[in-house]
Amino acid sequence: MISMPRFVALVEVWLKEGLVDAEGKSVKEALNDMGYSVINVRVGKVYRIEIEAESKERAEYLIDEICRRLLANPVKDRYKFSVHEA
Amino acid sequence: MISMPRFVALVEVWLKEGLVDAEGKSVKEALNDMGYSVINVRVGKVYRIEIEAESKERAEYLIDEICRRLLANPVKDRYKFSVHEA
Repeated sequence: MISMPRFVALVEVWLKEGLVDAEGKSVKEALNDMGYSVINVRVGKVYRIEIEAESKERAEYLIDEICRRLLANPVKDRYKFSVHEA
Repeated sequence: MISMPRFVALVEVWLKEGLVDAEGKSVKEALNDMGYSVINVRVGKVYRIEIEAESKERAEYLIDEICRRLLANPVKDRYKFSVHEA
């Protein structure tokens, strides 16, 4: 059995621009109260995924599928990712 | 009154490597159950912060301070960030 190459993906998941980011708003207000001239804050999640795949192209295909199937809610989220060899 | 330049910082906050990332473990197991050859998953938070500052160097100083004072818990978290002009 030949082991497949490993890749590392970094995935960011953010609320879509039009939606109110309540956590970001709270962080902004806390920072303003602390004296920082912060204009806006948005909060997202980031996933570091190690995955086996035949090629980088296949890894990118799988990560995109994973985003759509599990990590991002298409109604409210947008996502972006990069993949590199482990 | 002269308005200050604006900068955008992207901050990632992750659990330190030695600590068990329960959410990452759950995501890994869900992906394995779905048939993906995922080896490891870690989950973090990402903040997009717009801030006013005199210079890029000053913005970097302020963002580092914000990480230490509010966004990252030094006992369990590590953070990294980049700053660019808005």
